[in-house]
Amino acid sequence: MPEDSVDTPCLVTCTAPVNIAVIKYWGKRDEDLILPINSSLSVTLHQDQLKTTTTVAISRTFQADRLWLNGKEEDINHPRLQSCLREIRRLARKRRNDGDTRPTDSAGLSQKVHICSVNNFPTAAGLASSAAGFACLVHTLAQAFGVEGELSGIARQGSGSACRSMCGGFVQWIMGKQEDGKDSVAQQVEPESHWPELRILVLVASAERKLIGSTSGMQTSVQTSSLLKHRAEAVVPRRMVDMIQAVRRRDFPAFAELTMKDSNQFHATCLDTYPPIFYLNSVSQQIMHLVHRYNKYYGETRVAYSFDAGPNAVIFTLQQFVPEFVQLVQHFFPPDRNRDDFIKGLPVKCAALPVELKQSIGLEPVPKGINYIISTKAGPGPRVVEDPSQHLLSAEGLPKKMV
Amino acid sequence: MPEDSVDTPCLVTCTAPVNIAVIKYWGKRDEDLILPINSSLSVTLHQDQLKTTTTVAISRTFQADRLWLNGKEEDINHPRLQSCLREIRRLARKRRNDGDTRPTDSAGLSQKVHICSVNNFPTAAGLASSAAGFACLVHTLAQAFGVEGELSGIARQGSGSACRSMCGGFVQWIMGKQEDGKDSVAQQVEPESHWPELRILVLVASAERKLIGSTSGMQTSVQTSSLLKHRAEAVVPRRMVDMIQAVRRRDFPAFAELTMKDSNQFHATCLDTYPPIFYLNSVSQQIMHLVHRYNKYYGETRVAYSFDAGPNAVIFTLQQFVPEFVQLVQHFFPPDRNRDDFIKGLPVKCAALPVELKQSIGLEPVPKGINYIISTKAGPGPRVVEDPSQHLLSAEGLPKKMV
Repeated sequence: MPEDSVDTPCLVTCTAPVNIAVIKYWGKRDEDLILPINSSLSVTLHQDQLKTTTTVAISRTFQADRLWLNGKEEDINHPRLQSCLREIRRLARKRRNDGDTRPTDSAGLSQKVHICSVNNFPTAAGLASSAAGFACLVHTLAQAFGVEGELSGIARQGSGSACRSMCGGFVQWIMGKQEDGKDSVAQQVEPESHWPELRILVLVASAERKLIGSTSGMQTSVQTSSLLKHRAEAVVPRRMVDMIQAVRRRDFPAFAELTMKDSNQFHATCLDTYPPIFYLNSVSQQIMHLVHRYNKYYGETRVAYSFDAGPNAVIFTLQQFVPEFVQLVQHFFPPDRNRDDFIKGLPVKCAALPVELKQSIGLEPVPKGINYIISTKAGPGPRVVEDPSQHLLSAEGLPKKMV
Repeated sequence: MPEDSVDTPCLVTCTAPVNIAVIKYWGKRDEDLILPINSSLSVTLHQDQLKTTTTVAISRTFQADRLWLNGKEEDINHPRLQSCLREIRRLARKRRNDGDTRPTDSAGLSQKVHICSVNNFPTAAGLASSAAGFACLVHTLAQAFGVEGELSGIARQGSGSACRSMCGGFVQWIMGKQEDGKDSVAQQVEPESHWPELRILVLVASAERKLIGSTSGMQTSVQTSSLLKHRAEAVVPRRMVDMIQAVRRRDFPAFAELTMKDSNQFHATCLDTYPPIFYLNSVSQQIMHLVHRYNKYYGETRVAYSFDAGPNAVIFTLQQFVPEFVQLVQHFFPPDRNRDDFIKGLPVKCAALPVELKQSIGLEPVPKGINYIISTKAGPGPRVVEDPSQHLLSAEGLPKKMV
């Protein structure tokens, strides 16, 4: 421990969740402020399975702002990271000028920050880590600088979808109308406790090839796809209303169909982009067929898929259907025999598959088409970690593993 | 030969071409009359490579209308076939009532027809044979019954895209406005002689699985895809104007880009259909990547692709680029070593591939991903075959091979 306790960094650690959009965000009307061309709606995933943890240290002894991501020092001058830092500092200054004299506030403003962040899921899993990452960064910085109130607008400037990770449960990102983006914020539609039967399975695909990043992809889409423009203006507003109603009523068939239609429409606009963008591969197509045929077999919509700008399928279903559907996935995407951790996260019971079900699906099995499954559910928003032993930075403000 | 020459059937044989839409037709506003939700534009392929041949025999000795397709007797009562037969007989009757007393006309009306039709390309090639088939049927029936004038509206009632096969060269199908469909007809934009450098390569894919037929597919799309509605109403009208201009000016880059964009938008609306429809598979995606990277390498649009409701890619390019591009296709889709007929149709010269070109494409070769290539160009509309030895029906009105 340093001798002079005044020089001991102020340490704050928080966690933040991943979210999966069921009404998709694709396309910005303002690249700098990250203002979207349409509203979107997502489900926040539970942090027991997927989360980012971030520690922020503030100290007058630090020479410069520094950043470590997943154990490696990264450039702190990333423009979007700087936007978040600047905005939090601006709010802290505003608060002090407004007469709040709490010590954390007055102390931090002229001081440098060290930021250390890790994901509990491999980046190779292809899950969008920027949403959880920027939500966690903004939440942790706000705690460290003693800033409260609406923060999703700041997280949005780090990564658009990060604003939705600032709330738990079912979250809408209202696109807003103002040029300065002040009204483009996230809002909780229902908390995670609202729909306890809802389950989420992330089918982590074996990535085949490099994908076009979402930032440049959506730029090209906005520039070239007339279908995207129509979707944003004429289709999504109605879908937002319908989706919020489906969530409020816990109407799974309505929720599921709209989720699938919106995922498909997003990928349709990618195909309408010039040159076209493909995120769905042959395994994705197989999963889509599997879901539609499973629902058809039972004559009701029991399972839905959603695909983002990557190869993973996200499956939404109800608790009671999880065992059979997971068994079905294992049947048509047989995993490597040597692996015993095909299903991670919430435990999944065993289930027998009716022969007629397997037959009626009528697909050729694709061995190892799916790498593993993460079984999870809706969860809360960012949290402060109270236990000081969980800080990722040491008392000196350096990553613990590196000390 | 029959003793009584009056009982000898009147025999007529015609051929008709396949066409490939560059502004796609997808969706009907009237299922019975086959009226489309948007206009479309196609290139008629040369019959030296791809054609349907049809012989119609009319005789008072025939007991019933009969039909043979590719050597097999088929049900003559197919509703769309009956529409064409009924319409031709109606026109013939009208002409007789209007005072035309040519013998072929007055003779045929109360008589039965035998129809025999063959394609010179395998159905397994997955080429839309219904367009050439119905165009040939209508043209041959019209000749046999002595009917002249606008016939594309009748061919349209057999198969929508068949109306475009009634003309050679560059053909638009004007969607029309009337409820009775009288103004929904094909019109030649430019004859086949207009753009002699244009070349067409049909890359026949190895079909992977059963596809959703276009009739039911477009029904579902019209019912469920809001993007399709927007495309038909707001996108295609402008594209028709632009495409006609590109054809008239022989502006290959404009023609090629619009062709690719429109193919992609058609497949985007298939993906926006619920449940979604996939016609593009992984080989299709590879071909699309290959074309875009080839164009990028040269910094100009030299090649375009177009995909219909099946697995084949149709490539448009200019004569001078054919040898290198075909070589490139063979490099990235290496054919079976034992086959010496990978390229059918118009001869293709050998070309050397620059190493840098191969490298810059950066795709993994897909052995046998393409079955064979048909090399062709724009060609004329339906033709009468004057040589009586080419009749598919004998003097008795039965298929020659069966006699």
